[in-house]
Amino acid sequence: MKASIIITGSEILTGLRQDALIQPMASWMTSRGISMDEVRVIGDSPERLVKTVRDLAQANGLIIVTGGLGLTPDDTTHRAVETLAASGDARLYPEIDNPVGSARGIDLRFDHGTRVVFLPGVPREAHAMFGILARELNESAPKTVEVTVFGLREVEIARRLGDLAAACGFLPRDMEVALIVPKTIEQDVRRILGPHALEQENLNASVAALLKRRGLTLATAESCTGGLIAHIVTQLSGSSEYFMGSVVSYSNEIKIRVLKVPEEIISRHGAVSHQTAAAMLKGVLDLTGADVGVATTGIAGPTGGSDEKPVGTVWIAAGRKEDHAVKDFRFRFDRQGNKMAFAKTALFLLRTYLHDTDIRSH
Amino acid sequence: MKASIIITGSEILTGLRQDALIQPMASWMTSRGISMDEVRVIGDSPERLVKTVRDLAQANGLIIVTGGLGLTPDDTTHRAVETLAASGDARLYPEIDNPVGSARGIDLRFDHGTRVVFLPGVPREAHAMFGILARELNESAPKTVEVTVFGLREVEIARRLGDLAAACGFLPRDMEVALIVPKTIEQDVRRILGPHALEQENLNASVAALLKRRGLTLATAESCTGGLIAHIVTQLSGSSEYFMGSVVSYSNEIKIRVLKVPEEIISRHGAVSHQTAAAMLKGVLDLTGADVGVATTGIAGPTGGSDEKPVGTVWIAAGRKEDHAVKDFRFRFDRQGNKMAFAKTALFLLRTYLHDTDIRSH
Repeated sequence: MKASIIITGSEILTGLRQDALIQPMASWMTSRGISMDEVRVIGDSPERLVKTVRDLAQANGLIIVTGGLGLTPDDTTHRAVETLAASGDARLYPEIDNPVGSARGIDLRFDHGTRVVFLPGVPREAHAMFGILARELNESAPKTVEVTVFGLREVEIARRLGDLAAACGFLPRDMEVALIVPKTIEQDVRRILGPHALEQENLNASVAALLKRRGLTLATAESCTGGLIAHIVTQLSGSSEYFMGSVVSYSNEIKIRVLKVPEEIISRHGAVSHQTAAAMLKGVLDLTGADVGVATTGIAGPTGGSDEKPVGTVWIAAGRKEDHAVKDFRFRFDRQGNKMAFAKTALFLLRTYLHDTDIRSH
Repeated sequence: MKASIIITGSEILTGLRQDALIQPMASWMTSRGISMDEVRVIGDSPERLVKTVRDLAQANGLIIVTGGLGLTPDDTTHRAVETLAASGDARLYPEIDNPVGSARGIDLRFDHGTRVVFLPGVPREAHAMFGILARELNESAPKTVEVTVFGLREVEIARRLGDLAAACGFLPRDMEVALIVPKTIEQDVRRILGPHALEQENLNASVAALLKRRGLTLATAESCTGGLIAHIVTQLSGSSEYFMGSVVSYSNEIKIRVLKVPEEIISRHGAVSHQTAAAMLKGVLDLTGADVGVATTGIAGPTGGSDEKPVGTVWIAAGRKEDHAVKDFRFRFDRQGNKMAFAKTALFLLRTYLHDTDIRSH
């Protein structure tokens, strides 16, 4: 089956608001074997909407329309639906429930088979109602699960999965990739991708689950990531159960004064070094009393790099005082991208450490 | 003039990648008085592209096409352009420079006046080349400037601006709104919006400029914001000039142990209180030796609220040890939204403090 999406309303078209619906809906359809044909963003005109629906109904079995669906009978969508239903070649089916708002969805079916579903433009409502529609469409489609991957780009995931890749939907988000995978091949996909396939819906939740299961507390010592790891960790509700806090030691003075990194380590090896990362880890664990920690020191750029330690270089320490991993990495993103890559890699290194050891709360 | 955008390529259409071009291009055109007619996202087919261009060329004076522009003559766009140019009613103009990549842009003009510009799909390249095109279009349009606003929603900005609002483009980003304003009314807009109109391109840069000009250093003490303020501050290259670091005191233990918040303040007034915010500020300034700081303590939610201190409540302290502002706010976003609102409001409070006082480095 082919499907298209129509986004109505002037907010997206005039650039007042960023679209938040195309990607999740298109990715979901692609992963279900529904072939995306076209997306159109149009203004607030009932005539234009009627014309666009008719245009796309020729080649598509499913059309999702979002926006223009208010509570009054004279809004754009209701007027367009009235015109379409009155023309004799389409019928209205029961409305679609809106579990999070008041405007209900409209289900119009052309006699030639095309189904047109009208949802509100509010992303939260559209997502919830698309979920209801998806469950219904799912009953005739294979069951799928989400497998989130870290540390491999989409092309590399596709290469490793080989023939299996065609059955998967790819949803990249914040340096992780959510794969939508038919349930029947989930174990194959996990086996092929090994440690890159995460247990939970994302890296942060995977680390959280490990820490909570083992009753461990966490602290971070952050130089180049500037608080981003702590920010990511605390995006999760319930993180106060295991997250004690962080020292963002952006200046060397704070590394020395607060984290007690010996001055000679910095002067001998540099602030961006294996030794400084390890000393920062020890310092934050001593200071906070947390069970495990991560520490980062690197060069996010665009300035501050050298031949020996170019922009994108980072040292990360993860684990306990007495027993931890320290590794260096090199990324080639811009400043913001490098910070995010450093932070996510630190969480991934902590996850690997927790998998490889069996430490628990004492 | 009317304009439309065509996004080609299967990545956006199948949901593999989120579109990053529609909003900035549409917003720019709207702010220049160019009326956005339609956006279409189509797959990688030269025939489809030709049909879509011809379809939209009927009503539009300008069509921007992105994607499908590789270096080989057999890619989607080159094949489509060849077909269009060969049909006798359109001519090729000189190519458009690509300052950040190798694929050059194509400029095709129909005899009936419609101009079709083909840009690469890589957002960085498309943005740079759209900038060149924008400068050229600008010569016939009124000169504009960007005025970034914090602390007012779009509807409230529009209400305050009254008739002037129609001349402005609105670009909301991360709880700030960039207004694209004709240069001739910039001073009126700034006067009406008062302290909400920022000096620099965003709140972060506005605070940075004030700190640098006065030679002041900054530290943050963050509970509910979980490191987000430090993360925002360090997104800016050059922040190491003034940013010393942060203590993310997520647990009360860290507030007491590292920031030296007296235990009786927490037990008497609660961790989320005027007194704790002020004590955290004093603590981080003592610990780091920074000139000024901000401290946040609040409830991001969804759990942890009470009748007296509901979810979304935050106390923020900003300034110096001897002289600072402490204010409470209440937001109604979700956890992530509340964290961002807390962090941005803290920076806004610091900016107000710096404007209201004349402190400089001693």
